[in-house]
Amino acid sequence: MDAVDHISFESTDTAGKSITCKAAVARGPGQPLVIEDVQVAPPQKMEVRLKILFTSICHTDLSAWKGENEAQRAYPRILGHEAAGIVESVGEGVEDIKKGDRVIPIFHGECGNCTCCRSRKTNLCQKFGVNPLKSVMVNDGKTRFSTKDGSPIFHFLNTSTFSEYTVVDSACVVKIDPEAPLEKMSLLSCGVSTGVGAAWNVANVQPGSSVAIFGLGAVGLAVAEGARVRGASKIIGVDINPTKFAKGKVVGITEFINPEELEVPVHEKIGAITEGGVDYSFECAGNLEVLREAFLSTHMGWGLTVLLGIHPSPMLLPLHPMELFDGRQIVGSIFGGFRGKTQLPDLAEQCMCGTLNLDEFITHQLPFDKINEALQLLVDGKSLRCLLHF
Amino acid sequence: MDAVDHISFESTDTAGKSITCKAAVARGPGQPLVIEDVQVAPPQKMEVRLKILFTSICHTDLSAWKGENEAQRAYPRILGHEAAGIVESVGEGVEDIKKGDRVIPIFHGECGNCTCCRSRKTNLCQKFGVNPLKSVMVNDGKTRFSTKDGSPIFHFLNTSTFSEYTVVDSACVVKIDPEAPLEKMSLLSCGVSTGVGAAWNVANVQPGSSVAIFGLGAVGLAVAEGARVRGASKIIGVDINPTKFAKGKVVGITEFINPEELEVPVHEKIGAITEGGVDYSFECAGNLEVLREAFLSTHMGWGLTVLLGIHPSPMLLPLHPMELFDGRQIVGSIFGGFRGKTQLPDLAEQCMCGTLNLDEFITHQLPFDKINEALQLLVDGKSLRCLLHF
Repeated sequence: MDAVDHISFESTDTAGKSITCKAAVARGPGQPLVIEDVQVAPPQKMEVRLKILFTSICHTDLSAWKGENEAQRAYPRILGHEAAGIVESVGEGVEDIKKGDRVIPIFHGECGNCTCCRSRKTNLCQKFGVNPLKSVMVNDGKTRFSTKDGSPIFHFLNTSTFSEYTVVDSACVVKIDPEAPLEKMSLLSCGVSTGVGAAWNVANVQPGSSVAIFGLGAVGLAVAEGARVRGASKIIGVDINPTKFAKGKVVGITEFINPEELEVPVHEKIGAITEGGVDYSFECAGNLEVLREAFLSTHMGWGLTVLLGIHPSPMLLPLHPMELFDGRQIVGSIFGGFRGKTQLPDLAEQCMCGTLNLDEFITHQLPFDKINEALQLLVDGKSLRCLLHF
Repeated sequence: MDAVDHISFESTDTAGKSITCKAAVARGPGQPLVIEDVQVAPPQKMEVRLKILFTSICHTDLSAWKGENEAQRAYPRILGHEAAGIVESVGEGVEDIKKGDRVIPIFHGECGNCTCCRSRKTNLCQKFGVNPLKSVMVNDGKTRFSTKDGSPIFHFLNTSTFSEYTVVDSACVVKIDPEAPLEKMSLLSCGVSTGVGAAWNVANVQPGSSVAIFGLGAVGLAVAEGARVRGASKIIGVDINPTKFAKGKVVGITEFINPEELEVPVHEKIGAITEGGVDYSFECAGNLEVLREAFLSTHMGWGLTVLLGIHPSPMLLPLHPMELFDGRQIVGSIFGGFRGKTQLPDLAEQCMCGTLNLDEFITHQLPFDKINEALQLLVDGKSLRCLLHF
């Protein structure tokens, strides 16, 4: 019996009606989120309205909250993209999801019909892939959120989970096992999937291989967990914050490097302790100097660097074309290469059966209306994930 | 009976002795090569002395001849790295090659013993891989070439084939079928292997796929030939020199784009005629703007750009890190990913049985002492390969 067994929609049929509920609204760059009542319109064609039960905060939310990229600003807005919940109602044409299903929303959807989805060679959906510039629904270019007086509140990353109810495209909803513990499933919405998938799907880490992870936030630690499950024999964690190291050991990191304690570049240190470099490196810091160190830390001939961090424009890759002739490769990774609707149900199973251990990732829990405290914990580097309960 | 059946070393045993022979010596940047008598010392431990029968000129020779990269200059020097010949004698310890074997020298060797060679995951030999800064033998840091008065003449790219005799490390000699037509086998020394291998080994071009090739010199046309053999259904050639198009048709190019005749960027044109981009693009021009067009010409989600062109320092890759999140990849390719000693004998077989057609690549033939004419043909873009006969 988990915490959400009391949830039922049988007694109150809200389908087709607007719902008034509590949400945390971003009203300007860096301003505290405002907990207020919002109107959530019914889902339209191929849309789903969810009751969010748990949500957490990821660095992409932080970046949007601060308004770091001016082109991506839109206020008022409901941020949030890591969550788990239950389907309240579905719009016309939705057949794979029904009221009462336990689900996780995904910011990087899978329509199943575009060239990319049909190819099965990529998880980049051309219709519902992550798009930080998007702030309205695809169907009509409008919002489903509005203030009490009817003015629109913008969406964020296909999900907007800092609200008791939200409307998302059905391509951005994954139905999971009803027995799955929803509070942990929230992590699969972004951070853990992004890290674990980078190790499994993008790098395809092999047993006995060596791995270096640059940046030990939740994503970096999830890479370590993914590499541990795959049987990597050496997992090197790199971070300038030594408090990350204790947690890192638990998820399988075998060695730590604090660049500030070194007298040589990180890649030289890694080269020295790995006979020429690691098989795989993961850039989870969003920093170009770190990216270059991550690239050079891999072994010539076959080293693969997976890029997970978000980098500011308009900087160029700090690599000379000829450096690619050393046989090192670099690839980007979105949502860990997971095709969400197709693959996340299985990932949830792997968490349930204990293959993947998510216990270390939720470091704090707070009621939803303490969301500004949770933001600050992440800003201060004190939390991995603070789970917010509605 | 081919042209080299008359070659025999039975009657004159030169093993262990210095040989005086004709070579084309580069004496300064851009100066005409000087045909002169040089001394070629006997091969030392694990070295092989070859009688070169055919040699041709590649753009890397041109670049070294012009002295484009100051750090790589060394004079006097014997350039040349595309050739075929016969083993005259071998040094101590050489067991896989013997006097009389028909061979091709390779600028990018395979020692078989370094971490990279043993991995079989890469063709980057750590001991005898291509190194444009190297101008002496590994054994003793000295040259095997000298002038009549005994002063050293430098080596080039492990091979120095613009000489009737040359000494190379055994890691840089590939023994091929004695029935193989040596004049064509010269092409496998560099250009054709580089192009065909990029399509086969690096990109792994699939049947029915689409390909764009930027730069239709010998390497680019060899990519086309490789893609044709693999069954690519659309092979787009891009070049600003329209005279390349006729030859391109013969090797399987299905469509041509002359960027100077377009009003939109090349990648937009390619996107329009391929439903979003090609599966593979190949940069054979050594130009950063072309590199970016090649990258953007591939399909999001799975497009792969293979870099073959040599780019000047110190320019950075003209890509933003976030562009890697569109699922396009870029990789470097050296010698077409071929592990020379292991794989080139089979490539020679494929030429002999007609799988691979090399007939189009030798556009001119001249006696060796006309080498400056051959250089000019390449500078002027009039030849693909001019085969020089000793």
